[in-house]
Amino acid sequence: MKGVKLGIAEAGIRKAGRKDLLLMALAEGTRVAGVFTQNRFCAAPVQVTRENLASGRMPRALLVNTGVANAGTGKSGLAVARASCSEVARLLGCDAAQVLPFSTGVIMESLPLERIIAGLPVCIADLGENNWAQAAESIMTTDSVAKARSLRVNLDGITATVTGIAKGAGMIRPNMATMLGFVATDAAVTEEVLQQLISYTAARSFNRISVDGDTSTNDSFVLMATGAGGGSRIDSPRHPQFLPLREAVLEVAQWLAQAIVRDGEGATKFITVSVEQGRDQAECAAVAYAIAHSPLVKTAFFASDPNLGRLLAAIGNAGIADLEVNGVEVYLDDVPVAREGGRAPDYGEDEGRRVMKRSEITVRVVLNRGRAAATVWTCDLSHEYVTINAEYRT
Amino acid sequence: MKGVKLGIAEAGIRKAGRKDLLLMALAEGTRVAGVFTQNRFCAAPVQVTRENLASGRMPRALLVNTGVANAGTGKSGLAVARASCSEVARLLGCDAAQVLPFSTGVIMESLPLERIIAGLPVCIADLGENNWAQAAESIMTTDSVAKARSLRVNLDGITATVTGIAKGAGMIRPNMATMLGFVATDAAVTEEVLQQLISYTAARSFNRISVDGDTSTNDSFVLMATGAGGGSRIDSPRHPQFLPLREAVLEVAQWLAQAIVRDGEGATKFITVSVEQGRDQAECAAVAYAIAHSPLVKTAFFASDPNLGRLLAAIGNAGIADLEVNGVEVYLDDVPVAREGGRAPDYGEDEGRRVMKRSEITVRVVLNRGRAAATVWTCDLSHEYVTINAEYRT
Repeated sequence: MKGVKLGIAEAGIRKAGRKDLLLMALAEGTRVAGVFTQNRFCAAPVQVTRENLASGRMPRALLVNTGVANAGTGKSGLAVARASCSEVARLLGCDAAQVLPFSTGVIMESLPLERIIAGLPVCIADLGENNWAQAAESIMTTDSVAKARSLRVNLDGITATVTGIAKGAGMIRPNMATMLGFVATDAAVTEEVLQQLISYTAARSFNRISVDGDTSTNDSFVLMATGAGGGSRIDSPRHPQFLPLREAVLEVAQWLAQAIVRDGEGATKFITVSVEQGRDQAECAAVAYAIAHSPLVKTAFFASDPNLGRLLAAIGNAGIADLEVNGVEVYLDDVPVAREGGRAPDYGEDEGRRVMKRSEITVRVVLNRGRAAATVWTCDLSHEYVTINAEYRT
Repeated sequence: MKGVKLGIAEAGIRKAGRKDLLLMALAEGTRVAGVFTQNRFCAAPVQVTRENLASGRMPRALLVNTGVANAGTGKSGLAVARASCSEVARLLGCDAAQVLPFSTGVIMESLPLERIIAGLPVCIADLGENNWAQAAESIMTTDSVAKARSLRVNLDGITATVTGIAKGAGMIRPNMATMLGFVATDAAVTEEVLQQLISYTAARSFNRISVDGDTSTNDSFVLMATGAGGGSRIDSPRHPQFLPLREAVLEVAQWLAQAIVRDGEGATKFITVSVEQGRDQAECAAVAYAIAHSPLVKTAFFASDPNLGRLLAAIGNAGIADLEVNGVEVYLDDVPVAREGGRAPDYGEDEGRRVMKRSEITVRVVLNRGRAAATVWTCDLSHEYVTINAEYRT
């Protein structure tokens, strides 16, 4: 991927001996767009990244640390985030407003600035275009696998690359984006087109996943277009290369978002909740999230127990005041489960049990009241989730 | 308690050898009010109880079964609920519209009418005023303790009794009421006053608890006033005995609601979340529920780990778009935790750890933007919750 260089260090931010600092240096002219958490206790680095993106200066670097989230840290947290940007700017010879900081880890603890300053020269010495795999590793916290995806797309004879990394396994219910997703392409696009790409993609990837319903203070999804791969600049949705690029970006983002769910804390199953024939996308998403967030549904999946009445209870809780329940149909993969307000006459519990044993399952809900649809990806709730989160800081 | 007789049977509705059928016979002239689940997949018995209460006929009996919830059962579920009322009416010599049915148990399974019909004569033979303890036992499902509370209140020289029972341990986040709460008094009140009593009480007891955030299909809270204890009929909020009775009813209802949380599936801790100085009660309740529903907060309590940044993340997720986080203060019992957007300068983790080890903890959040307040009671999230709900039907 031309135009992005990555450098990694073991800065010992919270624990020694693990990669925990990542610097991404961007080629001049790279366009950058971001979407961020809606959590009111939005982390200090997210605030600084927003400010710097709004400054109008084209970003030249992203700085990412794990271990400490620098959220719930008040004014001193903002000062540390800004100081880390200044240090990167000094070393790279750019302006502090051209550096975007990101953090993930424990909330309400101070980020040790001196360890970041000490680690930065190591990152800079390490900068290279082929470090995406190590970069994916360096942003892991409770993740059990590194998440990186790359693909190529032909844009009118020029091969562009779209590469992304993400982290996240718990506190996952992105409201605007997810806990650190970075996707870059060497295609050339305008700011306006980049903004359209990120909105479209976020709404169909990072904004459609949930592990535990908890929206993080640090969620950030950043899309970068370096333009270093050549080709004419895509300047509108009517440009002939807009749709192929959008599909490639979406594929990478969906793959990363789904990888977060597959790696959900304690997850043993990957569940696709697909809601169809609703009045609008909002109500379809509300039903999908009501299912995805129900601990009773999630423990039933963990147990492979077709206790599917819990799906009806969850649908009934989605807040659709005028939902006519007799019109709702529910399917588990290909098995019809519920119809006309109750169990489908042709449903057999043996069939339900057969599907529940699978490691990937689709819950399909047909609302029969419109033409909108939404899909959410989630996982089950296991003993391991409780273990991981009871022992997170130890 | 004069005016309510209770009879219990082992009807074998889902499993043999356990009390699972309860009949409550009410004295003539008893006033009854109810509040019910807002779940759109509202159970058949809840629909029939609403209809019968709306019929204008004064109820003479309540019929309660456990094992099968008769929810997600479509038209046949309604037919079974109505047929069970008809059978009670035939045996007691009243109208079917004077019988209120209630069910709790597995969703989307058929309620075996013939077992109810077979059990009813046993209930009738057992009818007595002193069976409240056995009645509390007969409505248990995953409950580990029976929940009953009785107290006496002096109403202008006449001793009135307020007695209540409740069940519930999981699928607990009542939206209008809880999974079966029945409170009766032998004081005399008008329908209008009874309605005021139940609204006031529900909003401060059953509607302020959460175990797992899942609103049940069968939640019902019923308040009955038999008038059999004597005394003048309380006919308005200005009646001198209105406030003493309201306090007594609230005390019983709060005790029962809190008992449900204490018995929450897998609960090891009882958490009071108290939110103060909000603009209105709705936003205070939203913040309290955001904390009470966060699996990350709940697992931290289970682990006695003062990972209290999770409280800030939950507050930030409460949906208050204009919340000024620098004004928010958080206390854990008497220990100041957060202030001015971050950790309180006088907070020490040793103190946090000391409080987290307690079995009863109060989280106090001061929003500093108004004069409203709300309190929600909840519990932690433990391995046992996953075990209970993964194995519920086995």
